[in-house]
Amino acid sequence: MTIDPHPWATELDSFWAEVWTRLSRGVRDRRAPARHPTFATVSPDGWPEARTVVLRGADPVNAMLEVHTDLRSAKVAALRVNPRAALHVWDAAAQLQTRVEAQVTLLTGADVAEIWARVPDPSRQSYGTTPAPGQPIAASLDYDKTPDQATFAVLRCQVEAVDAVHLGPRHRRARFERQNGFSGQWLSP
Amino acid sequence: MTIDPHPWATELDSFWAEVWTRLSRGVRDRRAPARHPTFATVSPDGWPEARTVVLRGADPVNAMLEVHTDLRSAKVAALRVNPRAALHVWDAAAQLQTRVEAQVTLLTGADVAEIWARVPDPSRQSYGTTPAPGQPIAASLDYDKTPDQATFAVLRCQVEAVDAVHLGPRHRRARFERQNGFSGQWLSP
Repeated sequence: MTIDPHPWATELDSFWAEVWTRLSRGVRDRRAPARHPTFATVSPDGWPEARTVVLRGADPVNAMLEVHTDLRSAKVAALRVNPRAALHVWDAAAQLQTRVEAQVTLLTGADVAEIWARVPDPSRQSYGTTPAPGQPIAASLDYDKTPDQATFAVLRCQVEAVDAVHLGPRHRRARFERQNGFSGQWLSP
Repeated sequence: MTIDPHPWATELDSFWAEVWTRLSRGVRDRRAPARHPTFATVSPDGWPEARTVVLRGADPVNAMLEVHTDLRSAKVAALRVNPRAALHVWDAAAQLQTRVEAQVTLLTGADVAEIWARVPDPSRQSYGTTPAPGQPIAASLDYDKTPDQATFAVLRCQVEAVDAVHLGPRHRRARFERQNGFSGQWLSP
């Protein structure tokens, strides 16, 4: 008899707990798949956009995720118009696809001074590129890194729903919604 | 002196060629990162959505990509309202993030009969789940797989732009647009 390597996928409660175990691991462990979710937004002119981000916080109790970015990035421009994001993680070891829907609050300035104070120097290099990220430049290296808290932004992501799929000998898919206390509902995969 | 492992990132022409080399590899090689792009759309009610897909075609000459899906999936409902997609690939070996913007044409029925005829039986299991994908079910395995060409859809993706970022000792970022013949423009990363 074969031992199921992912017994958590058979019950809604343990499925939900596993989603958060994996997200939390992404915050602590650089090598965990959830370290680098794909973060999708809707641009001001209605295009879907997706890019890799670094997951900086995961709070299972309040269902919150946190991402840091440059205030002048395209994703901030998108979120100012439509403050909704999708976060996507494929975890190959768990054979688990996690899809998060979140309402995003943009925090800057004094509201993030304490967080900025804890950002290590190498990471600070990501905030304060000149010219701003996405601006045209004549040659590939015509830019400077000048860390600057004024361009540091925190994206506080309130999880509204999670659609999780486990690919096993038979696939299992469940949806968890905040409005139902994340109690979970099986879906056809 | 260190040898640059990714000399293609220093010139726009070779950067563009590398993007397509990697996309094409995804179609042929199950283990290539571009095998499984994240495919983002905008839902009918304006939410960004992202999920893993399998890349089934890549045509550098015409700048076309191809993905197969179930006609009853949420992404098809999204594309019927807003026929635009973002495809995202992170290729760790190349240290390359590829972000594609594409206009999507939905093909079904007689238009895809030839493609369906070439879909191997194991892959056909992905088209024709009952109840339809995303429908609530009482228990996790309350569904059947009944391959059915009537639910098979091809998403033909006309690439309109690519934003590519190479993470090296210094990062390089370029944008290639169809309206400029994909000639490329360096951007601040």
